[in-house]
Amino acid sequence: MNREKLQDNLGITVKKSENFSEWYTQVVKKAELADIRFNVKGFLVHMPWSVKAMKLMYRKLEDELEKSGHQPLMLPSVIPESNFEKEKEHAEFKAEVFWITEVGSERKKLEERLALRPTSETAFYQMYSLWVRSWRDLPMKRYQSCQVWRHETKATRPFIRGREFWWIEAHDAFATREEAEAQVKKDAEITERVMHKLFGIPFLFFQRPEHDKFQGAEHTYAADTIMPDGRVLQLPSTHFLGQNFAKAFNVKFVDEDGKEKYVWQTCYGPAIWRIFGAIVAIHGDDRGLILPPEVAPIQTIVVPIFFKGKEREILKKARTIKQKIVRRGIRAEVDEREEHTPGWKYNYWELKGTPLRIEIGPKDVEKGQFVLVRRDTGDKINVKDEEIEKIGKLLDDIQRDLVQKADEFFKVKISEAKNMVELKSLLKKGGLVKVNWCGENGCADLIKSETGGGEIKGTLFGKEEKPSEKCVQCDKKAKQVVYIGKTY
Amino acid sequence: MNREKLQDNLGITVKKSENFSEWYTQVVKKAELADIRFNVKGFLVHMPWSVKAMKLMYRKLEDELEKSGHQPLMLPSVIPESNFEKEKEHAEFKAEVFWITEVGSERKKLEERLALRPTSETAFYQMYSLWVRSWRDLPMKRYQSCQVWRHETKATRPFIRGREFWWIEAHDAFATREEAEAQVKKDAEITERVMHKLFGIPFLFFQRPEHDKFQGAEHTYAADTIMPDGRVLQLPSTHFLGQNFAKAFNVKFVDEDGKEKYVWQTCYGPAIWRIFGAIVAIHGDDRGLILPPEVAPIQTIVVPIFFKGKEREILKKARTIKQKIVRRGIRAEVDEREEHTPGWKYNYWELKGTPLRIEIGPKDVEKGQFVLVRRDTGDKINVKDEEIEKIGKLLDDIQRDLVQKADEFFKVKISEAKNMVELKSLLKKGGLVKVNWCGENGCADLIKSETGGGEIKGTLFGKEEKPSEKCVQCDKKAKQVVYIGKTY
Repeated sequence: MNREKLQDNLGITVKKSENFSEWYTQVVKKAELADIRFNVKGFLVHMPWSVKAMKLMYRKLEDELEKSGHQPLMLPSVIPESNFEKEKEHAEFKAEVFWITEVGSERKKLEERLALRPTSETAFYQMYSLWVRSWRDLPMKRYQSCQVWRHETKATRPFIRGREFWWIEAHDAFATREEAEAQVKKDAEITERVMHKLFGIPFLFFQRPEHDKFQGAEHTYAADTIMPDGRVLQLPSTHFLGQNFAKAFNVKFVDEDGKEKYVWQTCYGPAIWRIFGAIVAIHGDDRGLILPPEVAPIQTIVVPIFFKGKEREILKKARTIKQKIVRRGIRAEVDEREEHTPGWKYNYWELKGTPLRIEIGPKDVEKGQFVLVRRDTGDKINVKDEEIEKIGKLLDDIQRDLVQKADEFFKVKISEAKNMVELKSLLKKGGLVKVNWCGENGCADLIKSETGGGEIKGTLFGKEEKPSEKCVQCDKKAKQVVYIGKTY
Repeated sequence: MNREKLQDNLGITVKKSENFSEWYTQVVKKAELADIRFNVKGFLVHMPWSVKAMKLMYRKLEDELEKSGHQPLMLPSVIPESNFEKEKEHAEFKAEVFWITEVGSERKKLEERLALRPTSETAFYQMYSLWVRSWRDLPMKRYQSCQVWRHETKATRPFIRGREFWWIEAHDAFATREEAEAQVKKDAEITERVMHKLFGIPFLFFQRPEHDKFQGAEHTYAADTIMPDGRVLQLPSTHFLGQNFAKAFNVKFVDEDGKEKYVWQTCYGPAIWRIFGAIVAIHGDDRGLILPPEVAPIQTIVVPIFFKGKEREILKKARTIKQKIVRRGIRAEVDEREEHTPGWKYNYWELKGTPLRIEIGPKDVEKGQFVLVRRDTGDKINVKDEEIEKIGKLLDDIQRDLVQKADEFFKVKISEAKNMVELKSLLKKGGLVKVNWCGENGCADLIKSETGGGEIKGTLFGKEEKPSEKCVQCDKKAKQVVYIGKTY
């Protein structure tokens, strides 16, 4: 087999470390994650491999949400324009909305414009006003897994920014401010358990500065990760809505003391679609995608190496091994395609990011063994047929190692600057830079312009950091320790 | 506990046999399947119980589709107007479309109107024209699980007809007409395995008459079931598209013989949402919903009967039993709510259609047993603690019995008429009536008007039935044996 030639067809032609942007574009295309050729700008066709991975991701996150008391709903994807008007700040969302204005062949005008939901607060809370009656109904925790539409004007990028993307939105209503505040911490914990431990995406969980909060929220919290090019990417966010929406949508309950009160609310929005983009970006290497076993549609691919006269016994062994590992709960397939060489298949499955490969040739049949190859390290191990349990163990190792490797990269990308010179120089390398800040918007604007786009991502949530010196930009006393990064 | 009084709060107030329409409305509301109070006409809010059941249904059908070689995709939910124009007949779909015409706060007009997909042929096939190159790419079988939007003008009804509903659409392309035709049979088989055997919905699979086919298809095939009120409900349909769309969208391949050819296509559209409506309608009784174990979010509910001083041991036993059956792969919960009596809980879970209930009182703790109650028959069985495997067995029995009961009802509803007098009288009782038909549209129209809505649903697929006499309506020679029913 002519491995080099095959690689030309399949492989990524740039190094991830040298041209991340082009590398990402090529992986999305060549690993067949999405097709960007649909004839509406900013809308993607998602291919089987990414759809299967995202389905696994949805299940993990949905399970975790249901364990923590959330129940699933499915709400309409259209929202009447008047709903947006009810909460003043939130009405700003209209700037991003796709509007449905007419129906049928005759272009019959609708009486009221309908928004394709850009987010569903105004749909959920008008229902909550019907459902919440007494303190016994609280907390009310509901979520939906769905797509949302936003008419983005910035450049779109598969799985990072698009005009239609898939997420989960969880909307919680509580009897007290304290319970709602406690939910922020719980959301951070869910993010840690799923996004970090299962998907391998490290993050810092920030409270965003006032000037960067969600429209209609009292406070916004968000998990930020760092992409290989050093840019910061916002992942799940939680908004502490206070009673803003409760008052706008009249969500009231009769408390144990017999008094009528407004609920306190939070909402949590992990975008599966974008987290998948982060998985692609963070774990992949110059050979293509590397999927953590937890989200890999195929965790182990079995490649038979056919030799004349031995085809039947090799294939038989390949199928037997597959069946055995499937029975152990591992997602596995045999690549039986006749039109491709084993070398081509190795490249193909490496590009697809399958965590483990099993090679079976005539010698393996003779010796009662098979060869295991790790996608992340390239390590090859000979395994005796009777030691099949090693596969599960190895998948666990890969899962753990990928998380650890991502953590190490992430840690290195967090630095600290005492002054603007340091800040500018560190931001050139990318990542998040810790600084002291006076807390004034003017100063944030100056930092942004002077650093060519450095934004204040916020203060660390759940860990108080006290500023010891003056603001990184001005001579005023610093009020907060914040992190600065350049975003997509 | 005052069971009667509690039932007033929860229970259905009409008999299913006497007023099916009102019964259905009440079940949807009281079993909390959907809330119809969202402020856009024809759009539903789906509640946790139905969402969980539909998720299970999606998995069953997706698994079956993937086993038969289909791969999942996710396509944009918007389709440019021009796509509809490419296939002439299909353009008629525009009559039902919600149109997106503007974006943002400034009402900026889009250059081209975008349809919210009413179905996705035109989106899939423009991509197929990019993906299909050689005979090796065929068959290409892809599906997506998604919602579609249709501006229905007929009265909407939860899970039966709505302006937004959830389905799967599978789109297959083949090298030959024969393979495409064979797929129709395969789709009928999938429908049988999943919709009939797992969901308990019996059906006849018809080839629709020419005047009732899908816009752009050569032939349409559909599985029809019969609702308790005798009306016919269309469930999954398969369209044999021939090469109509292939020519419109230029989906060509180079065959083994080196020649360029158009593909042959089929599409299959099982509407999970509507099948769920059929499950509600067909299995339920005067106490509420009855869910087949295969689709029940909770298959066994454990209700502890608290007695003073014994609360702790009863609860402990309830939790232990739950854990044991969960370990056996059964979806189970303990209803630990303190604010409700056991009687109220019995009614509640009967309304929700949970297949099995376990009651545990102080005597059961003493005797080392528990009480099992079947939702479908009301049978009570004392089970020894060590015979816990009986639960799985009983769930299998319930599943089988529900399918059988539905089959029996269905069979009775199929009759045969020799002339218009018989036909009219039989159609008053509802169901499907087998008749001879001359095959002419004029005659079909007369049948419809004379019977007050009886429509020709088609000829039986896969079983040739030869007409022996003249047409049921006119004196002409009959060409086909067809089935007539009144639909929603």
